[in-house]
Amino acid sequence: MYPNMADSNRLPTEPYKGVRDFYPEDEAVQKYLFSTMRGVAERFGYVEYDASVLESAELYRAKGAENEEIANEQTYTFTDRGDREVTLRPEMTPTVARMVAAKRRELPFPLRWYSIPNVFRYERPQRGRLREHWQLNVDLFGSHSPAADAEVIMLAHALMREFGAQESDFQIRVSSRQFVQDIAKRHDLSPENHRAFRLLLDRHGKISKEEHEEELKKLGISPEEFAASNPPEDVAALLEPLRQANIGNVAFDPHIVRGFDYYTGMVFEVFDTHPENNRSLFGGGRYDNLLDMFGEHVPAVGFGMGDVTMRDFLAVREKLPTYASPVKVYLAVPSSALAPEAMKLAAELRRAGVNTAVDFGDKKLEDQIKAADKQRIPYLIVVGENELGSGEFKVRDLAAHSEKPMRRDDLSSFFLNL
Amino acid sequence: MYPNMADSNRLPTEPYKGVRDFYPEDEAVQKYLFSTMRGVAERFGYVEYDASVLESAELYRAKGAENEEIANEQTYTFTDRGDREVTLRPEMTPTVARMVAAKRRELPFPLRWYSIPNVFRYERPQRGRLREHWQLNVDLFGSHSPAADAEVIMLAHALMREFGAQESDFQIRVSSRQFVQDIAKRHDLSPENHRAFRLLLDRHGKISKEEHEEELKKLGISPEEFAASNPPEDVAALLEPLRQANIGNVAFDPHIVRGFDYYTGMVFEVFDTHPENNRSLFGGGRYDNLLDMFGEHVPAVGFGMGDVTMRDFLAVREKLPTYASPVKVYLAVPSSALAPEAMKLAAELRRAGVNTAVDFGDKKLEDQIKAADKQRIPYLIVVGENELGSGEFKVRDLAAHSEKPMRRDDLSSFFLNL
Repeated sequence: MYPNMADSNRLPTEPYKGVRDFYPEDEAVQKYLFSTMRGVAERFGYVEYDASVLESAELYRAKGAENEEIANEQTYTFTDRGDREVTLRPEMTPTVARMVAAKRRELPFPLRWYSIPNVFRYERPQRGRLREHWQLNVDLFGSHSPAADAEVIMLAHALMREFGAQESDFQIRVSSRQFVQDIAKRHDLSPENHRAFRLLLDRHGKISKEEHEEELKKLGISPEEFAASNPPEDVAALLEPLRQANIGNVAFDPHIVRGFDYYTGMVFEVFDTHPENNRSLFGGGRYDNLLDMFGEHVPAVGFGMGDVTMRDFLAVREKLPTYASPVKVYLAVPSSALAPEAMKLAAELRRAGVNTAVDFGDKKLEDQIKAADKQRIPYLIVVGENELGSGEFKVRDLAAHSEKPMRRDDLSSFFLNL
Repeated sequence: MYPNMADSNRLPTEPYKGVRDFYPEDEAVQKYLFSTMRGVAERFGYVEYDASVLESAELYRAKGAENEEIANEQTYTFTDRGDREVTLRPEMTPTVARMVAAKRRELPFPLRWYSIPNVFRYERPQRGRLREHWQLNVDLFGSHSPAADAEVIMLAHALMREFGAQESDFQIRVSSRQFVQDIAKRHDLSPENHRAFRLLLDRHGKISKEEHEEELKKLGISPEEFAASNPPEDVAALLEPLRQANIGNVAFDPHIVRGFDYYTGMVFEVFDTHPENNRSLFGGGRYDNLLDMFGEHVPAVGFGMGDVTMRDFLAVREKLPTYASPVKVYLAVPSSALAPEAMKLAAELRRAGVNTAVDFGDKKLEDQIKAADKQRIPYLIVVGENELGSGEFKVRDLAAHSEKPMRRDDLSSFFLNL
């Protein structure tokens, strides 16, 4: 029995509902995800920007009907003490649009920017849909070219490959808002039915094939004709460079629309091909009119990739890295009186660039070794009277349970050359 | 005149009041600050953790009078739709205490953790005191030893040195809550006067010497005796290892107390020695009882270092790095018809690991070169018919205004060996 359990004034230690604590081993996975994202984005010529999680609420209210719903019901919005309405950003696109619009006349185009912000949604926590998650955002501003559309899809493909996915593990499905408009025009859909058609496409996969076909018929669209559609012009124009780049897992899919109102052209989604988890992992598209709300016109194309979805995807395929401590060596001491000597040796090693942790001898030597091993620090040295006197130390490999004698002067080069 | 200025529905492009946008050149400075912090913390054996910016509001209400003031008046606190009171964390210490308490029985001690969270204060924006800033937090849990106190001060010193500061640029002033208590006991101060004494010390430097001495006298403390105080036992015990580590700019200062109620032992602050800016840059101390509120008892010592203060400090001393693009080469094209060829060459370079950006030829060649130069991308290659035909490309050094012919096969090794 723990004596403290009786204390009813005790504060709970859980994080706030729907958000995560990142203990070092979890944080190491985040760092792996983010550094992989950074590496690939920079290889394609993108540079990093950032902004605050706090944005004026009006930024999310200007975009149209569906987004208003998100703004009003699914965001964290509150009034600050200066009577300003503030929102915890639910996505990064409005922020990056705001930043580009602010310096429209100074920035060089085509502009390639990325960021890995945390974003917030006020919704019931469920698998892959927490209240806070991190999301790589990649955006290319200032080009109408289908080559720009092709580039962001190439980047999405390169990211998946860099994470260790085979082409057979995922599929890239592309369509265009142009296609939706063409169909709407050909069937002379009212603005209301046009919207109903788009929402129906967005629900594809969440409803049965039969229901989907029924709904198409209600709108006067033949399911057979719809399924046999050819890619619209802008999609055809980008599929060719993707084929030339030997990207084999990309195809036109007339069902792809993406939820946000602001897309104007190409839209794409990357799907998990796992038979038990055939779902969309991430996606993006072209949004040529979003900067108009700031009085600027700049074409843009980009996508967002979330950390939770990618973690799940990689965990199922056992492609997440195993934890390795950034600390190379732990200095243990037989008694606290030797802590100052261990600190001196640590200072020598650190000056040479070796990440070194010291024990102050508050616990038994055996427990110090256990503490080092639990942190997965690979090496340990006992700093005792004998070792200090002789100048010869035993470097213990904690995983291999082996040890190796070494002169004090040789220690740092040993750890640096590991 | 800008035609768009007439549009009154235009959204403003400024960020929310008191927070910052990080354009790539600003973000590069943040990245430099954070990577330096990470490097030094890990050299001392610390590992990174993280948590959400959202915390239950009660976490900040439990700590005592002064902090309640912060909780009620200076934090962003709001009620969520589930009627929970949520706070945007104003500091990281309560969060890390919560996380350590949650896994008290599993974690290895001494535990060395660091994080670089953004934290929020609802206050009037002023120099160095924005509403959101980032803050390195370094904490060592599980040791009562003065060696642990000494270690965090060594780490603070190493950080300043790693940022390029000379010892003459800063001074580390150390005291202890023990000292405050000793004085209070010796002068038999009431609990009320004890607190008044501590608040007086905290205001030192913000009020005149005369006022300070007057206030001391009111409490029955002789200013002369106070100024001549000897370091208390715990401070004396840590000054010795710091001297052995050749840290020359550390001294006992009886005025140091730190604002937070939760400190229980050693407290320190690092001061800028610049004659026109002799202010506290950052600080920390020992807080042995903070985990008690979770029903756990774990001694702890640590500090926080803010990005805004460090940026200012380094900017004044011209020690911030100049911007360098992560992108190595820009491929320009004489016409958009050649964009597919440039994309092929880019793919080759990227496969070899060279960060490469491509122009799609939407603008004149001259403007493409200007765009690359403006982004401070160091090299540019024009991918024209002649170059593609001959297989020989001219690698242009944009800063040096020079160029060098090179075979297609030699390009990637040239950029990788820069």
